[in-house]
Amino acid sequence: MNVGVLLFDNFETLDVFGPVEVFGILKEYYQISFYSQHGGIVKNTHGVAIESWPLSNIIESVDIFLIPGGFRTRKEIDNRSLIDSIKQISETSKYVLTVCTGSALLARTGLLDNRVATSNKRSFDWVISNGENVKWNRKARWTVDGKYYTSSGVSAGIDMAFGFLNDIHGQEFAKKAAFKIEYNWQEDKDFDNFCVQ
Amino acid sequence: MNVGVLLFDNFETLDVFGPVEVFGILKEYYQISFYSQHGGIVKNTHGVAIESWPLSNIIESVDIFLIPGGFRTRKEIDNRSLIDSIKQISETSKYVLTVCTGSALLARTGLLDNRVATSNKRSFDWVISNGENVKWNRKARWTVDGKYYTSSGVSAGIDMAFGFLNDIHGQEFAKKAAFKIEYNWQEDKDFDNFCVQ
Repeated sequence: MNVGVLLFDNFETLDVFGPVEVFGILKEYYQISFYSQHGGIVKNTHGVAIESWPLSNIIESVDIFLIPGGFRTRKEIDNRSLIDSIKQISETSKYVLTVCTGSALLARTGLLDNRVATSNKRSFDWVISNGENVKWNRKARWTVDGKYYTSSGVSAGIDMAFGFLNDIHGQEFAKKAAFKIEYNWQEDKDFDNFCVQ
Repeated sequence: MNVGVLLFDNFETLDVFGPVEVFGILKEYYQISFYSQHGGIVKNTHGVAIESWPLSNIIESVDIFLIPGGFRTRKEIDNRSLIDSIKQISETSKYVLTVCTGSALLARTGLLDNRVATSNKRSFDWVISNGENVKWNRKARWTVDGKYYTSSGVSAGIDMAFGFLNDIHGQEFAKKAAFKIEYNWQEDKDFDNFCVQ
């Protein structure tokens, strides 16, 4: 499967590279490419400067579209052209995975309406203001609704990526992959240590 | 503190970006820069292409020198010029942190001789062949010996980075940082789920 990763300035480092590591070790199954609205080098405040292709290079769809979060999402939700691209690619891709505040960007497209989704705990109130018709679930490590996977903050994206492997390839496969990178996978998507209500 | 991250082709994605996320969220304390032997774009098999400075730009030392692993380490251990640079920078830096097979590169410099260190479990026998005088500890999430921190495979680098924060800033500070990125920190460096002997 082709994994297309969306980047924008000030994306959150681990939102991207957690799931990228998980899919990356399975080269016989997953091929990863990085995209941004206009292509070129994308930078964040952690000193990362990474090459990307223009989103328009995704002619129709990718198998898996990964949307990370980061503080910049607060600006990008008003970037109509980017939201339109996210909508078009998400509609036609097989699966859409969001990490952290990435679910706010997806919510803005309307595609999460009447679907269950979650997000970063510290930005939750802001996130839900971007999708009034989404069935937001505050207490979840990640959620699955049809082809849409959404995870809680930052590190939760890694658990969700293994959860995705579990759904596609089975539990043994996912556990083996987690063992390979010595990751203590939190397997229960409904268990959430970080929801303080 | 300045954090200098060593890159080389086919570095392991999460070895680098796990600790980078941990230090990255603490911008008031840590500034991160990426280096490679000759500078420029460094690529790995997960599709990542990252900008880097030449190692020679580190005039003397950095406060924290981070050495990741990856399959390429098997080649780089014979890269005398790189090993010499790693030695010179490690000797003069305040702290040296290795992730996964990064400890093989550091072992090659001789600086780990008579010190406790660990590494990736699946490559352990190969790693220890690169440092016969190192006190290798197979069963550890990470080790600390003086200014040298070494972690087990891939994901263990994140736990080690929080362990480093714990040692520098105290436990409450480290726990707060882990909570911020919704990370289930495994606090005990001597607990190791992945050592099968």
